[in-house]
Amino acid sequence: MVSVIIISVLEKGYLLFYDIRIMAKKKQYAIGVDIGGTNMPCSLVDDKGKILRTIEKKTLPEQGADSLALRISESVKELLTYFKGRLKKGTILGVGLGVPGILDHKRGEIVTCPNLPGWKNVPIIKLIKQKLKMPVLMDNDANCAVIGEHWIGAAKGTKNAILLTLGSGVGGGIIIDNKIYRGSHGVAGELGHITIVAEGALCGCGNHGCLEAYASANAAARTAKERLRKEEVISTLREKDINKITAHDIFLHAEAGDIFSKNILFESGKYLGMGIATFANIFDPDIIIIGGGFSDAEKYLLPAAIDEAYKRAFKHVMDKMKIKKAKLGNNAGMIGAARLFF
Amino acid sequence: MVSVIIISVLEKGYLLFYDIRIMAKKKQYAIGVDIGGTNMPCSLVDDKGKILRTIEKKTLPEQGADSLALRISESVKELLTYFKGRLKKGTILGVGLGVPGILDHKRGEIVTCPNLPGWKNVPIIKLIKQKLKMPVLMDNDANCAVIGEHWIGAAKGTKNAILLTLGSGVGGGIIIDNKIYRGSHGVAGELGHITIVAEGALCGCGNHGCLEAYASANAAARTAKERLRKEEVISTLREKDINKITAHDIFLHAEAGDIFSKNILFESGKYLGMGIATFANIFDPDIIIIGGGFSDAEKYLLPAAIDEAYKRAFKHVMDKMKIKKAKLGNNAGMIGAARLFF
Repeated sequence: MVSVIIISVLEKGYLLFYDIRIMAKKKQYAIGVDIGGTNMPCSLVDDKGKILRTIEKKTLPEQGADSLALRISESVKELLTYFKGRLKKGTILGVGLGVPGILDHKRGEIVTCPNLPGWKNVPIIKLIKQKLKMPVLMDNDANCAVIGEHWIGAAKGTKNAILLTLGSGVGGGIIIDNKIYRGSHGVAGELGHITIVAEGALCGCGNHGCLEAYASANAAARTAKERLRKEEVISTLREKDINKITAHDIFLHAEAGDIFSKNILFESGKYLGMGIATFANIFDPDIIIIGGGFSDAEKYLLPAAIDEAYKRAFKHVMDKMKIKKAKLGNNAGMIGAARLFF
Repeated sequence: MVSVIIISVLEKGYLLFYDIRIMAKKKQYAIGVDIGGTNMPCSLVDDKGKILRTIEKKTLPEQGADSLALRISESVKELLTYFKGRLKKGTILGVGLGVPGILDHKRGEIVTCPNLPGWKNVPIIKLIKQKLKMPVLMDNDANCAVIGEHWIGAAKGTKNAILLTLGSGVGGGIIIDNKIYRGSHGVAGELGHITIVAEGALCGCGNHGCLEAYASANAAARTAKERLRKEEVISTLREKDINKITAHDIFLHAEAGDIFSKNILFESGKYLGMGIATFANIFDPDIIIIGGGFSDAEKYLLPAAIDEAYKRAFKHVMDKMKIKKAKLGNNAGMIGAARLFF
């Protein structure tokens, strides 16, 4: 133990007295929840970022916010029950939420969630606190992912890092000077919603030509379907019901040698590269990390993306900046959400 | 005068004693130089951002770096001579340079300047220090401009601010958490070089479809010339030599009622709006400031830009973010360059 006594005497005669004792640190824990469109894993995470146990329930967004808050509190209670007696009392600091939407941090509300239809101005923090007598914090899901990757993943040790999560959409998170950057109103980092094709395809956000409308898993599936319907291309994807083709199908067919599928992925990668070039020239970061389920197709996406980014961004940045796949996979969100407490 | 006494007693028995006296602050000054493609104003600036005197020489980039360093040191010496005896000794802290290029801050070098052809790896700091026995600092010119605007201009009092300078190119500067953001290798803020039209017009940087290739003064002039040559449009601009049309001509003709000229400016504004939307969604800043000579056409550019940005960016950001014209005009660069010392 270190004890420090500081006495400050100001001119007017005030006496300030501080006694700061830094105790030997007890191991601490937090619970991180990653609210996805389908599933909602809830993990107990220690203060080194290690996941001790995960409970996964369905998100079921159509059942509304109260039902979601109930299922989150059930997951948390199950974790608390499991660890009762195994962990020291008072060492679980609270519940961190990764939410896939635009948040109002002051009010503790979800303003809107593109992937949870009908979720507008939901006081999620209040709803969960009513069910759990624990502190609750939240952040955008991509912010949680980049916090996790910066803590113990691909961006560990970097000062400025950008994360792009490629899934049904394209999310983003920004680390500046070792801290998450949330902007002036808590909404910064919507990196999927930058215009890269001025009059391009309609995006879920209502804008045209967003990066998300070209480099997401949904965009790849849309492009493949459109071409298979309109053009006389040869592809093993024709063996499937065209309406049901997913980005994962495209990846599997590419792996099996289908040229059409490979080209769709190379094209996604090319647009991803335009985004990477844009973020390179804006942020000049140490690293840009590519995460999310669609990044499993990295073997097609990344070479095309890196090639395009080199064509477009300043060489001085590209030569020094790293581009890497995310390291924590699906766990980044829970780990980052828990990190909000440490 | 305020006197603070701090006594720290550590457990091991060390006694630390500080006596900090904050003296009544002497007024201080710095010299700011804004190295432009044509002119190079050099100002003595006080610690409140007030310009006391400016000396302007030509940049003459074709004469090389040594010649430029000589002319900068001459301007500085003229200022020092003028103020000799009028200012207290030791109160002029140094010379700050605003440089229109990519800088290597560690080496004190200009890596490359798109608008100063042939300027590669120029040790500008060393060259000037050889001629002046004074501290010399530098930053990118757009960084200096946003530092100036944040200090005493349109972004005063904001925490997160973005500046776009519309001139022959489009420059950018980023203030995050009240500090200039330079990135990991000193090159951040190249906001003119983001792809907004995937396969669009060639930009000076070698990329296609950059914001600069659509929203700069040069881009407006290029578009006007192309259309007047290829299309049968009616415009009073036809009274001029088409090859010599500038953005300023377009502005003057718009002011005189020429519809074609107005539409060219509205179109520039529309693309500017795509850039604004992109920066709004990425940074969620307090304010985006539009500066540079071409922003004098704000009456056409800004309404179109704001309209387009509202269509494209998240409403939650746009409703809270301000979009304003820069306040310091051509002085922002010198003021910001001097500010590097305060």
